[in-house]
Amino acid sequence: MATLVVPQPVPSEAEDCEKLHKSMQGWGTDENTIINILTHRNGKQRCLIRQTYAEKYGVELSKALEDELSGDFLRAMLLWTPHPAERDAWLANEALILKDNSGHRHYVIMEIACTRTSRGLFEVREDYHARYKRSLEGDVAFHTTGDFRKLLVPLVSAYRYEGAEVDMTLVSPEATILHEKISEKAYNHEEIIRILTTRSKAQLNATLQHYNDQFGHPINKDLKKNPKDEYLRLLRASIKCLTCSEKYFEKALRLSMKGLGTTEEILTRVIVTRAEVDMKKIMEQYQLKNGVSLAQDIKGDTSGDYLATLLSLIDHHA
Amino acid sequence: MATLVVPQPVPSEAEDCEKLHKSMQGWGTDENTIINILTHRNGKQRCLIRQTYAEKYGVELSKALEDELSGDFLRAMLLWTPHPAERDAWLANEALILKDNSGHRHYVIMEIACTRTSRGLFEVREDYHARYKRSLEGDVAFHTTGDFRKLLVPLVSAYRYEGAEVDMTLVSPEATILHEKISEKAYNHEEIIRILTTRSKAQLNATLQHYNDQFGHPINKDLKKNPKDEYLRLLRASIKCLTCSEKYFEKALRLSMKGLGTTEEILTRVIVTRAEVDMKKIMEQYQLKNGVSLAQDIKGDTSGDYLATLLSLIDHHA
Repeated sequence: MATLVVPQPVPSEAEDCEKLHKSMQGWGTDENTIINILTHRNGKQRCLIRQTYAEKYGVELSKALEDELSGDFLRAMLLWTPHPAERDAWLANEALILKDNSGHRHYVIMEIACTRTSRGLFEVREDYHARYKRSLEGDVAFHTTGDFRKLLVPLVSAYRYEGAEVDMTLVSPEATILHEKISEKAYNHEEIIRILTTRSKAQLNATLQHYNDQFGHPINKDLKKNPKDEYLRLLRASIKCLTCSEKYFEKALRLSMKGLGTTEEILTRVIVTRAEVDMKKIMEQYQLKNGVSLAQDIKGDTSGDYLATLLSLIDHHA
Repeated sequence: MATLVVPQPVPSEAEDCEKLHKSMQGWGTDENTIINILTHRNGKQRCLIRQTYAEKYGVELSKALEDELSGDFLRAMLLWTPHPAERDAWLANEALILKDNSGHRHYVIMEIACTRTSRGLFEVREDYHARYKRSLEGDVAFHTTGDFRKLLVPLVSAYRYEGAEVDMTLVSPEATILHEKISEKAYNHEEIIRILTTRSKAQLNATLQHYNDQFGHPINKDLKKNPKDEYLRLLRASIKCLTCSEKYFEKALRLSMKGLGTTEEILTRVIVTRAEVDMKKIMEQYQLKNGVSLAQDIKGDTSGDYLATLLSLIDHHA
């Protein structure tokens, strides 16, 4: 359910590199060619292009792009081009070293921890080692505090089982534990953290379905008693990412374009990280929820090469 | 610094399997052949033998061994033969599902978490998925409580950076945090847990060296204020495993054979898990600390095929 479209047959990486190089030579830049090539190659193909480009022209493709492009268009291209694990390591590190206190960092880390496959998340941790000479979980623990740390460190350290098996004997007891702790307002209780951070997604889905049936409310409704509590907001978002990530991403996209101005940072992140994964499902959810297509809203809120890049990644043709 | 010795040239796995099969046919068992072959093959070779044996004779080698051997000898062979990650997953699961409260489980989990390589520990988690359909960290969290859980879950979930780089700007502040929290008797403080469970071994070594220089005591001395506190005992053992594991293993071996009787379970575990890694260093430490060789003590405490297996794994010839 990716929106990424790769032409068949796909040109060789040598051919792609030649065109990319030509599009960035001399005066002016042929942005269309850059967009047309890069947004229509999958992760493996983009890796080969980067490798070939560096060998052939003695300069990293990312460096060449930085010299020619700018603004949101540049950022989208720089984030789209790398291998997903490399991109995530970079996004996580950028979020962690940000000195602001907007809570932005928590969402980037949580998204990576909860919506990648178990192997994918481990690859981010491997890439983080290679790039930053530290562990991802170490940096998360160092740069967060309190309840946020308590939740994020195990989320990012998890290697969840991904089989469909559900241990039915655990479903009711663990739903009851969650309900008890939430009723006591012990939202940061170690048992809540344990269940959310170590159970497989299949197991969690069964437990939360049982919660709903047994107690008459979805867990996220019970976690909304204090809507302004930032930790509770992150907890709800984590649960959404673990159980129905397309709804989380739909909302992130919607809020990024709501009202005046656009939070390009979120818009870009969601589109580049999901185009190759489940963007179609997110777009269906968007249409359902907003009565308007994602493409239409992006067109209303962005422009130029940045707009063209995003539309191409979600496979929209004007 | 492994003690494992593999003959050069090594026989083919078909040849090994034939001999193993013959040694277990008819009346009686040729234990010497089994010991001679299996204790002189490395992990990869043993995997090939197991695979070939199952294909050739339609029965798992482990099943064949179970039918012919018994007691500590059988357990040593069953634990030695598998791939290290498979063995560790099995040991961890066995420890976790034990219903006793001896604290034994904590040490097995801690040893695996603190003395394997980062990649090795991750392979244990992968194997645990395949074998038990759950995550290792999930089972650790489910089967432990309180401070033990607080320490063991992040230990077992860690993917530590393994480079030699040390961030010197962190050494003094983190040594100070450790000292402060220990002085306040806040032994389970999240900052102690964070530092011990997320820092690379090189970083930790530098921090603990600084601790010693700055405050005049090794950290483990300061953690010994209440020698009977089981959590503190585990904390000290974790630090030993992370910074000088040969000393931890020397002591485990020593205590396993101290006084009347032998704790074969520990003796076997340490020897089978270290023979292919750093057993030489552990034996040097043993000689240094006890004025007697490990082989000599093993000879005094065990006998028969079990003794022969252990001696062969530590490369001792009578």
